[in-house]
Amino acid sequence: MLERINQPNDIKKIPVDQLPLLAEDIRRFLIDSISKTGGHLASNLGAVELTMALHYVYDLPEDKIIWDVGHQCYTHKILTGRKDDFATLREEGGISGFPRRAESPCDTFDGGHSSTSLSAGLGYVKARDLLGRKYHVVSVIGDGALTGGMAYEAINNAANLKSNFTIVLNDNAMSISKNVGGISEYLSTIRTSPKYTGLKDSVLDQLEKIPELGDHMVERIRRTKSSLKHLVIPGMFFEDMGVMYLGPVDGHNIRNLIRVLSEAKRYKGTVLVHVITEKGKGYQPAVSHPDKYHGTGAFDVGSGMALKHSRTTYTDVFAASVRKLGTLHHNLVGITAAMGEGTGLESFEQAFPERFFDVGIAEEHAVTFAAGLALGGMIPVFAVYSAFLQRAYDQIMDDVCMQRLHVIFAIDRAGFVGADGRTHNGVYDLSYLTMIPGMTVLAPKNAWELEDMFDFAVRFHGPVAIRYPRGQAYIGLKEEREPIRYGKAELIHRGKGAAILAIGSMVEFAADVSERLIGYGIDATVVNLRFASPLDYDLIRELADGHSLFLTVEENCRKGGIGEQILDFTEKEKLPVHVEIAAVPDRFIPHATVESQRRMAGLDVETLTDRILRWMKPDHVPEG
Amino acid sequence: MLERINQPNDIKKIPVDQLPLLAEDIRRFLIDSISKTGGHLASNLGAVELTMALHYVYDLPEDKIIWDVGHQCYTHKILTGRKDDFATLREEGGISGFPRRAESPCDTFDGGHSSTSLSAGLGYVKARDLLGRKYHVVSVIGDGALTGGMAYEAINNAANLKSNFTIVLNDNAMSISKNVGGISEYLSTIRTSPKYTGLKDSVLDQLEKIPELGDHMVERIRRTKSSLKHLVIPGMFFEDMGVMYLGPVDGHNIRNLIRVLSEAKRYKGTVLVHVITEKGKGYQPAVSHPDKYHGTGAFDVGSGMALKHSRTTYTDVFAASVRKLGTLHHNLVGITAAMGEGTGLESFEQAFPERFFDVGIAEEHAVTFAAGLALGGMIPVFAVYSAFLQRAYDQIMDDVCMQRLHVIFAIDRAGFVGADGRTHNGVYDLSYLTMIPGMTVLAPKNAWELEDMFDFAVRFHGPVAIRYPRGQAYIGLKEEREPIRYGKAELIHRGKGAAILAIGSMVEFAADVSERLIGYGIDATVVNLRFASPLDYDLIRELADGHSLFLTVEENCRKGGIGEQILDFTEKEKLPVHVEIAAVPDRFIPHATVESQRRMAGLDVETLTDRILRWMKPDHVPEG
Repeated sequence: MLERINQPNDIKKIPVDQLPLLAEDIRRFLIDSISKTGGHLASNLGAVELTMALHYVYDLPEDKIIWDVGHQCYTHKILTGRKDDFATLREEGGISGFPRRAESPCDTFDGGHSSTSLSAGLGYVKARDLLGRKYHVVSVIGDGALTGGMAYEAINNAANLKSNFTIVLNDNAMSISKNVGGISEYLSTIRTSPKYTGLKDSVLDQLEKIPELGDHMVERIRRTKSSLKHLVIPGMFFEDMGVMYLGPVDGHNIRNLIRVLSEAKRYKGTVLVHVITEKGKGYQPAVSHPDKYHGTGAFDVGSGMALKHSRTTYTDVFAASVRKLGTLHHNLVGITAAMGEGTGLESFEQAFPERFFDVGIAEEHAVTFAAGLALGGMIPVFAVYSAFLQRAYDQIMDDVCMQRLHVIFAIDRAGFVGADGRTHNGVYDLSYLTMIPGMTVLAPKNAWELEDMFDFAVRFHGPVAIRYPRGQAYIGLKEEREPIRYGKAELIHRGKGAAILAIGSMVEFAADVSERLIGYGIDATVVNLRFASPLDYDLIRELADGHSLFLTVEENCRKGGIGEQILDFTEKEKLPVHVEIAAVPDRFIPHATVESQRRMAGLDVETLTDRILRWMKPDHVPEG
Repeated sequence: MLERINQPNDIKKIPVDQLPLLAEDIRRFLIDSISKTGGHLASNLGAVELTMALHYVYDLPEDKIIWDVGHQCYTHKILTGRKDDFATLREEGGISGFPRRAESPCDTFDGGHSSTSLSAGLGYVKARDLLGRKYHVVSVIGDGALTGGMAYEAINNAANLKSNFTIVLNDNAMSISKNVGGISEYLSTIRTSPKYTGLKDSVLDQLEKIPELGDHMVERIRRTKSSLKHLVIPGMFFEDMGVMYLGPVDGHNIRNLIRVLSEAKRYKGTVLVHVITEKGKGYQPAVSHPDKYHGTGAFDVGSGMALKHSRTTYTDVFAASVRKLGTLHHNLVGITAAMGEGTGLESFEQAFPERFFDVGIAEEHAVTFAAGLALGGMIPVFAVYSAFLQRAYDQIMDDVCMQRLHVIFAIDRAGFVGADGRTHNGVYDLSYLTMIPGMTVLAPKNAWELEDMFDFAVRFHGPVAIRYPRGQAYIGLKEEREPIRYGKAELIHRGKGAAILAIGSMVEFAADVSERLIGYGIDATVVNLRFASPLDYDLIRELADGHSLFLTVEENCRKGGIGEQILDFTEKEKLPVHVEIAAVPDRFIPHATVESQRRMAGLDVETLTDRILRWMKPDHVPEG
């Protein structure tokens, strides 16, 4: 069947009764393909029939389908002529794991971060109506993404439209891991409720008992309303927001999906189609462990076992640290925005369930919630990916830093992230965090230093962030383990002439560069900066004596990074030293391996070595 | 009566039946006081009885009352011993217009930005329960703030608590101006609905007609549900989210408020008390024009007329520009996040109501909505205050800049804002915007340049931001009006030795400084940078020849600002010039006049002149 799908709308040539066969083919293709390349598996398996039905009912590229986050778009890519590109999925130069307008006219909005599809969709709708166009707009959002506030901001604005806007709620009762909160429970009530027609008698009874307003006692109302809830008019919550509700619909019954979507398409207004899907559908290991198969590396299809086992990651180190600190400090609490597994905070959850909070995909709330916890006497640790913390920039500034609260930010995936690409690269945090007055920012050179930094952060008073990269923890420089002192760098090697001032992941590179330089007769000083804010200005001042060159190295954008800040200091102090800044250049770096992304940014041992040689030995001819 | 109120809980000594007299006293005091100092009037007049009732029912400072935004906290300040400080309201060294923990132990969370109180309150609640404490937590949020997504994120997390958390919804059917969206209409239904007990018969009829699931036709369902909506169990929307609903309650009936709040206090769980208030209550001009009296300058109590009439502001210039451009470009659309009047976009609304979108206090949605509009063929202009745009940092990066969309950001209140203080200072945007790849950032030197920059921005393709300060537009340097060219600065005066490179509001200062320097025999070059990104590196390179000093001047934080970026360039190019950076230092600047705030930051003509003199004339003794 799959051979007949080569370009957009080919699916329409297949009779409806044969679509389940195509669904099977697509599932097999997905499992086979992702088992080799890695990628998002469970969410894609869950969305096969839904995507097929959407492509059956709508005309692409005229109609616009907007995938929230976008990691469920693989079937969409298969149905729009990109089947053969899956061998290069998420590889350098290959197709992205997310929708990308540059790849296909059928991709209408570049995804990556959560809860944006309704806002973008509403933008398309308003533009369409103002320009008198006729296309349809469909935003496909997961129940997890619905915990993000901006989705609600958009629904609030989509109320009472006079033209069609279809929201498909792809409800698999999970975000990346299990879902949380009142809305989640509400949706679950709909999913599990008996057909409401059988309830009329008890509803009647309850209606009789509603007391007059103004004469209420809390308990009485509570009990009455609680019973009334069994009325469960599905979707009343959405209808209250001014959105028509259709559903729930079985997300694996293509015929029904086509019927309901066709109905939705005709409606003059905003309509939410509630589709129930199963994450991992069709592949038992993914159904059983949807979080493990959310984003996966290559795996063996038969056993479901990963082909590569990674060694200890920074996430593992954090997980062990925070758990240990939880034992020592009974007021330590952990917060995650739907990333309990990804951040490693689930190990804290297991040990201290009552002190663990998964707030949903709600970074803004997470930060201000942390501020409240700190004011109430707790030490909150918000474990979050660098790229997603961007969502809470304002709350970090106003609610945490202006109030000088002791909130710890454990920032994972800082630096390049590889296959997930530009939306997930965490290469801005050193800039956007150090510019906030009162924020202390650290980055560890290796596994042990991450542990030490968390010890420090818990004892510290005030806002403090520790950022560390994705993947395997560096275990070199083990012997370098000076105690962490506020604002103090660690001098790893004192040489002369050139000094390499590196932070976090780049300290390893600095050590390698200095090794290479020995071969050129250069005894370079190596500094592990440790603190991006405050910088160790005493050491910098001292090093200016005896060094004509500072090479600063950071896995962070150049603008506003520590390189520019160090240069600012040497210029202000009129220190006689040239500052070379190695940092991520002013462009978005696409998906590739982390190693390759670093090389694109000039953050590799060769380039860094050459930059020092060019200054120290002007006659030197770079290698290669 | 007011004389008996001198410290927290004094209000409890007053019999309930005399509280209305105290309310009158407080209102008179507020009107009288704010008419002299300026400040937030309408919101405070609306919250008098509500605040009194809260202070009556709760024990401060043990119990925690968290005011969302905080501009309605004046009565709270009066009732907690700060009555006599109102003469210094929002003045340098005086009390803040927002809750400030540094002012009183009864202030539990520092406000300023919207929709944070529920997150902070929930943090207090969880901390209280974990530590086994017994205090009560009350978050007071307006219906406007409820349009902000993070409020919803918090409610979602407050669902099904086992201990008390009281949310007071202070519903005046307005945020700063009129309110928008589905939730607003929903609340309005509650406000205007007849008592629901009278509806049982028709409800019954409708219930009988509900069709079986799976057999539905859209229209039939829509009609049925629409009728069912008349059931209007008040607050079902909140109950669906897992929050107990109480109300609606008349917010000016103290006795009722006390009764309902006392009930709420006893409830084991999250309870939302829906209080209906009138913005401006008790002062007719404020009732009639609540938006004008939201934040006001000094005014005459009798006539309601402002005492000072400001001259043309940058906001006025923007308002005229965008309206004119709307006539020329039929695909231009305007977006505001509940700031139609403040940003001047209301003039666009009057001319083009169908192309104007007030999305509520929802900056995240606004930006991604703008991205969708741009993709659909429109030219969106998002008019927003600098400090509030911080909320959408991630969306600007991922949804606009990564996709290179032509979205125009009209950023008002960039730089110091005066009386509103540190939460409202817009002194970070040059850093957080220029660090985003692909973002073009401009700032005008005077009124005419702002107009020219908008003309440029509309013709440009790609993300573009124009930032301009609060208040009166500068009308000097009128004759300097070179056409705006991408990435090109304007050379206002070519001198030698020292060059002042200034941007936006600071160009005026640069011109003044250069005038002063003439008296010292220095003919300084004056550059109006115009573009913060991309900087005019050609001009900078050229100027390095013939100048030994660059003084960069920006009303923006030093870290990541244009000074550091210019220095980065001169160092990289090894240009033989010293760069002095004048920018906002690394701390939060409190409320004061704008002039004074600038002086605190070293951004005044005297300090800037002295910095050049110290370099050019090392023997010079600074004046004063």
